[in-house]
Amino acid sequence: MLRRIARAYSTCGKVFPQEPVKPQLISSSVPGPLSVEANNQLGTIFDNRAAYFVTDYENSLGILAAAPPGMSKVWTALSGSCANETAYKAAFMYQAAKERGLLDFNHEELESVMQNKSPGSSKKVILSFENGFHGRLFGSLSTTRSKPIHKLDIPAFNWPMAPFPKLKYPLNEFTQENLEEEDRCLQEFERIIKNDWEPHQIAAIIVEPVQSEGGDNHASAHFFQGLRDITLKHDILMIVDEVQTGVGASGKFWAHEHWNLTNPPDMVTFSKKFQAAGFYFSDENLQPNQPFRQFNTWCGDPSKAIIARTIYNEITQNDLVNKTAQVGNYLFPKLAKLSESYGSFFNLRGENFGTFIAWDFKHADDRNKFLFKMRQQGVNIGGCGDVSVRLRPTLLFEEPHADLLVDTIEAVLKN
Amino acid sequence: MLRRIARAYSTCGKVFPQEPVKPQLISSSVPGPLSVEANNQLGTIFDNRAAYFVTDYENSLGILAAAPPGMSKVWTALSGSCANETAYKAAFMYQAAKERGLLDFNHEELESVMQNKSPGSSKKVILSFENGFHGRLFGSLSTTRSKPIHKLDIPAFNWPMAPFPKLKYPLNEFTQENLEEEDRCLQEFERIIKNDWEPHQIAAIIVEPVQSEGGDNHASAHFFQGLRDITLKHDILMIVDEVQTGVGASGKFWAHEHWNLTNPPDMVTFSKKFQAAGFYFSDENLQPNQPFRQFNTWCGDPSKAIIARTIYNEITQNDLVNKTAQVGNYLFPKLAKLSESYGSFFNLRGENFGTFIAWDFKHADDRNKFLFKMRQQGVNIGGCGDVSVRLRPTLLFEEPHADLLVDTIEAVLKN
Repeated sequence: MLRRIARAYSTCGKVFPQEPVKPQLISSSVPGPLSVEANNQLGTIFDNRAAYFVTDYENSLGILAAAPPGMSKVWTALSGSCANETAYKAAFMYQAAKERGLLDFNHEELESVMQNKSPGSSKKVILSFENGFHGRLFGSLSTTRSKPIHKLDIPAFNWPMAPFPKLKYPLNEFTQENLEEEDRCLQEFERIIKNDWEPHQIAAIIVEPVQSEGGDNHASAHFFQGLRDITLKHDILMIVDEVQTGVGASGKFWAHEHWNLTNPPDMVTFSKKFQAAGFYFSDENLQPNQPFRQFNTWCGDPSKAIIARTIYNEITQNDLVNKTAQVGNYLFPKLAKLSESYGSFFNLRGENFGTFIAWDFKHADDRNKFLFKMRQQGVNIGGCGDVSVRLRPTLLFEEPHADLLVDTIEAVLKN
Repeated sequence: MLRRIARAYSTCGKVFPQEPVKPQLISSSVPGPLSVEANNQLGTIFDNRAAYFVTDYENSLGILAAAPPGMSKVWTALSGSCANETAYKAAFMYQAAKERGLLDFNHEELESVMQNKSPGSSKKVILSFENGFHGRLFGSLSTTRSKPIHKLDIPAFNWPMAPFPKLKYPLNEFTQENLEEEDRCLQEFERIIKNDWEPHQIAAIIVEPVQSEGGDNHASAHFFQGLRDITLKHDILMIVDEVQTGVGASGKFWAHEHWNLTNPPDMVTFSKKFQAAGFYFSDENLQPNQPFRQFNTWCGDPSKAIIARTIYNEITQNDLVNKTAQVGNYLFPKLAKLSESYGSFFNLRGENFGTFIAWDFKHADDRNKFLFKMRQQGVNIGGCGDVSVRLRPTLLFEEPHADLLVDTIEAVLKN
């Protein structure tokens, strides 16, 4: 392994160019964890926590194999919060380098930064959206706008927030209103950029394909294409947070693939279901050209890269993304029918979006009672936002499970 | 395992009370990684990344077994930066709860916090010391004061910095000067608290037992006892960052044990050599009494807790801390003799501090040339600060290794 590392690394960085290489995969006949044999072979990676750039190149290719369209590089991190914060750091350094051009850091910058003052410390900001959730470390928490309890008593950067569309359901009954709502949000987004901040002060925006923690709030491809257009127009980087939406549940491997953007996002962050964490990107300028700027002791975790590789392999070998899209298309109309019959169950959303489906109750109490009764029937579902129920079945959820779920929901609603 | 988890957890928190339990240890006859057999038994923990509070209670007791004197609880995290930031969050919530008393959050707090504004977002600060290093996420980087390159172009909180003593060596020749330097720093520290900030605005200080990244800067027990006295006097929490100094190299398991404080620190953070990460504490008020405030998806990593337990077990079974103290006491006088003979090699520090020894060269070029030549002789040593060489041998470094090291250093210095 040491030789492999020595071969793969010529600098301290840990950015892997995508190569036309089929990674050597761990075979495993059923979806699930690594086999004991595979684990033994890989013992050293699991038993020792590799530090610095001592990551396993071959295993990281497994993460790269899952890169979204238009993304060719990955930077690994330890958690979703950490992935978002390293993406923010990349954005700040990218924008500063662009302004600085060929100039070196100047004396004033070198002095002021040690006092946490500008110009050495950046006055640039990250913009996030109302009800978004991006983590709970100090930088990521400053972009999180989910609930007060997540943020109270913790210092935060004075960074901006833009509105996220509040769509009405069923979508086909509110086409015009929803279009107007999305355009209103896009206009307000651009107004904030132009009026509230200096040109180029907003280094990046971060947005979830579905605001998950904040209540499973969806927006259409039109809205996200609008964000992409406006960010490109104002030289602002676009970070898509796929920590909760990524890895197949939406019926695409990455949920933002539903948008068919004319230009891919600048960075896509991941963690949770993928077990490994980090961000994808393609512009090499997002890797600072001085060593040890984007850096830390662990720089990700090779043992989690192996798990991610195995997960990716299982998903692709068993066509689980397409199967999830299909079962979602089977499940959604059944839930829509329930929603028509039971008025307490409404705002059903997530059509053509795999099993990433949610709906609302009128009051939090009703929602919580529903979740409790479902559990009594042996079905474990979770809530999000104030009044929402979110489905997050595994990728092995099939039509018979969907039938059982619908029957149980109906039995509970009947009471 | 699931039953064990169910038994151990009644709330969503992950704070383990220290119990008079001898954790069931993994036997391993030689120092090193987990045996293959142990790994197989523990396969599920290594193969699946446990989320939320699904941490293994028994294994976490291994981390608690290593708790510093006066510490009875641990909160786990993913990295040193993450450990420090969760400690900062604990400090901010602790201080706010103390001020709020029995009152609930008020309307103004609940509204303002969603705009990242006070009073909901805290205006309290963390004080750190000149040349300190505490990590590279946004909160931790705001307390890092090592080098501009670590901080440039990244936004930072306007948090205060106090001077750290610059001691002169050999210590016995500068007793009076060094005492005066430490008292000067303590006075300036208290002046900052009293004059520059509102009462109780400084929630906590963070300090390393030896400023490692910043140049292996030591201070005496007198200085640290002074910090403890002043923090207690002003109701400021004291966080000791043992990310680099912890786990035996100083000749104590935790370097701050050298201080014999009259009151233990409020929190002690760890990562690196211990592989697991987190912070020790004892005051239960450092755990917020509302659920999901100190929280995140992963909340540490059970697989790293197992590694930490094994490391702790190996260290105690083989008495490696005492052995490291002894070999440090064997090595130091030999280096002191070299320093007397070779004027280019000075400011030797780390006496009675295990193998945590460092010295300076006059210029960075001389230091770098020395490190290069040592490597050519097969000895891999690192630098820190601008002109320092720091020794960080393993805990299996013994007298014959010390002889070899001294001989090689002398051979290189002679050239």
